[in-house]
Amino acid sequence: MLLLPSMNLSLNHCEQLDAIDPLRSLREQFALPPGIIYLDGNSLGVLPRGTPERLAQAVHQEWGQHLIQSWNSAGWFNLPQRVGDKIARLIGAHPGEVVAADSTSINLFKVLVTALQITAADAPARRKIVSERSNFPTDLYIAEGLCRERGLELVLLEASEIEAALTDEVAVLMLTHVNYRTGAMYDMAALSAQARARGILTVWDLAHSAGAVPVDLHAAQADFAVGCGYKYLNGGPGAPAFVWAHPRHTDRFWQPLSGWWGHAAPFAFTPQYEPAPGITRYQCGTQPILSLTALDMGLDTVLAAEPLGGMQALRRKSLSLSRLFMDLVHARLQGYGLEVVTPSEDAHRGSQVSLTRARDGYTIMQALIARGVIGDFRAGDGHGHPDILRFGLTPLYIGHVDVWHAVEHLREVLEQGEWQDPRHARQHAVT
Amino acid sequence: MLLLPSMNLSLNHCEQLDAIDPLRSLREQFALPPGIIYLDGNSLGVLPRGTPERLAQAVHQEWGQHLIQSWNSAGWFNLPQRVGDKIARLIGAHPGEVVAADSTSINLFKVLVTALQITAADAPARRKIVSERSNFPTDLYIAEGLCRERGLELVLLEASEIEAALTDEVAVLMLTHVNYRTGAMYDMAALSAQARARGILTVWDLAHSAGAVPVDLHAAQADFAVGCGYKYLNGGPGAPAFVWAHPRHTDRFWQPLSGWWGHAAPFAFTPQYEPAPGITRYQCGTQPILSLTALDMGLDTVLAAEPLGGMQALRRKSLSLSRLFMDLVHARLQGYGLEVVTPSEDAHRGSQVSLTRARDGYTIMQALIARGVIGDFRAGDGHGHPDILRFGLTPLYIGHVDVWHAVEHLREVLEQGEWQDPRHARQHAVT
Repeated sequence: MLLLPSMNLSLNHCEQLDAIDPLRSLREQFALPPGIIYLDGNSLGVLPRGTPERLAQAVHQEWGQHLIQSWNSAGWFNLPQRVGDKIARLIGAHPGEVVAADSTSINLFKVLVTALQITAADAPARRKIVSERSNFPTDLYIAEGLCRERGLELVLLEASEIEAALTDEVAVLMLTHVNYRTGAMYDMAALSAQARARGILTVWDLAHSAGAVPVDLHAAQADFAVGCGYKYLNGGPGAPAFVWAHPRHTDRFWQPLSGWWGHAAPFAFTPQYEPAPGITRYQCGTQPILSLTALDMGLDTVLAAEPLGGMQALRRKSLSLSRLFMDLVHARLQGYGLEVVTPSEDAHRGSQVSLTRARDGYTIMQALIARGVIGDFRAGDGHGHPDILRFGLTPLYIGHVDVWHAVEHLREVLEQGEWQDPRHARQHAVT
Repeated sequence: MLLLPSMNLSLNHCEQLDAIDPLRSLREQFALPPGIIYLDGNSLGVLPRGTPERLAQAVHQEWGQHLIQSWNSAGWFNLPQRVGDKIARLIGAHPGEVVAADSTSINLFKVLVTALQITAADAPARRKIVSERSNFPTDLYIAEGLCRERGLELVLLEASEIEAALTDEVAVLMLTHVNYRTGAMYDMAALSAQARARGILTVWDLAHSAGAVPVDLHAAQADFAVGCGYKYLNGGPGAPAFVWAHPRHTDRFWQPLSGWWGHAAPFAFTPQYEPAPGITRYQCGTQPILSLTALDMGLDTVLAAEPLGGMQALRRKSLSLSRLFMDLVHARLQGYGLEVVTPSEDAHRGSQVSLTRARDGYTIMQALIARGVIGDFRAGDGHGHPDILRFGLTPLYIGHVDVWHAVEHLREVLEQGEWQDPRHARQHAVT
């Protein structure tokens, strides 16, 4: 799509948009590194200003002074539930339906096994898990491992092929709501309804949704959901993940990782497992309290938007930022071989913009990072999905002016051939 | 066993023992709360003095300033391996054989499933997992869940019955090396040899061993091991756990939690899972970096003993402390209905002393805690294992004088009937 530079695509206009942004005060919650435009909050959210002091308190007072008594006095023991209740407010779940624990991969294992148990009981002829080929790989790996062990079939499709594949052979539809590569977003309510109508259980990964786009799991009548604490929830590196199960499912089966934190009475120390009622049974072992405390603080930065319109307001700003980004790419980056792969329709994208280029994507991103614009690069997967330059747009701390400057930096990198500088060649395994 | 008060059982003698303790300087590594005698390092290790500053650096610089670049620049990505290599030095494993990740329960699930895969391939008629009835419950719950799902039998026995039960029907012998209730320690080498001779794989939980007693997994020819980061390794509340598999097993099967951190090339983002070689495949999802950083610091407090004799020196001191504790109980707590349940033979106990009493154990411990002596209470399990008053003796920061005073406080609690004060009645679910 060619878009002529409009009067509105100016730095001045961006400044005006930021000046009237009702959420602009929320940026003050974050310790943004000086001189950096950080467009990678979809990989690791920025440090909230309040987190270091709260963590120091947890370390010095809770651990250092009160030691084991803090399991009660500091509420460590119920922290997965209390953090879970905060997450519930962002994803259309009720209090007591979410726990923050373990990793996204492990939570996905728990809910997939439970979904397969339900299907084995109710519809044993269903032997397929359907997912998207460019779903985040760990989701596919977990499903692949399960299918391999149980003789099930993992069917990987392009997004456009999913709907037609929802047959009576399918047990579970497992999707990531917002694609980590392209930012394309599924219509969760519509797909869940189609799956449900055809007797298929849905498992949604909200890694790129929670805190980024409005989610209403109950309205969608979804069956299970998992998600990530360290992206839009600003919980810090490797923060614990979360898990939700619809109440119609939680008490029906054991989840497979039947550890003591999921026991009905963990401190009775009885030799037999008795699962706790509700989502508590989706806990397994002791949780990393320091990292969980940081996640608790990160969530507060998102919930601080509630008096300002909450997720709906964050969504409006996010769409404004991503629309601006795409318009600027079309207006100012013509002729450099870049293509926007993120859907232009608002309803079909999350909170990021992804670009592709036939080659040199990695070094272009490195040159951009050298200028202080932090996005990231995701290599093509050899299955028709190209290299991606990703730009996450966290509306809590990104403004329209940031987007303007980011695109200008990208233009200068391309115009001046900076990406050909050998110092930007690939050096690391992790990018 | 009645032991008359000897000349040596005096406070003065305890002071002399501490004065000549070659490890006495190690106590300075810890921020011990003033006025407290902390005998619960087998539940949650004490805060190392160096941890708060290191954590603040991880938060402010690594997360706050360098953000996602820290996956490379701060070495976050390989932190599970680097921490694992430190743990390896304490348990007789080689570098590259241990990763620090997830919880003990989850790691146990990984290795149990792998052990069952090996058995299914090599000796499918073996359909039993043997364990101890008073093993830590989460170990039993994980095994119970697996047996339930797979139609296997979990055989729970008393410690004295284990050896006779190692028949050709048994797939896996799963034991915790040091019992969490009594402090009784198995002879790992002897039991592993017996199991091995009978074609049975061994899974050892080192939760109360790593950093507490010398362990040599290779010398014992053990098959798998897991353990805890927040007890004797001083990693902080809910610190990540660890997992070891003998190299003869690691590359033979996928472990069931086949997440992206266990992939051979996690940042290639390919749709198909390909497990990394070696113990790296026992990783699953992204790890909680802040909690893992605290564990890294905790390990350094244990490794600081290496120039002073290492685990052998820690063991000598630990045995001296537990022997003193038991001698003092026999000498000074006669007539109060207490019984020592920890084995008196050095080779058969870990690094704690456990007492039992027909009743009122909970309130006695609460009264003791009110005096600043922190142990803990573990309720009887209704299967013949009585209430326990536990006293963990971490030789890094506990001295003989601490033991003297702890027993004197206990004597005064009993003599003065303090435990009958209603304020010590049970108030919390977590004790």
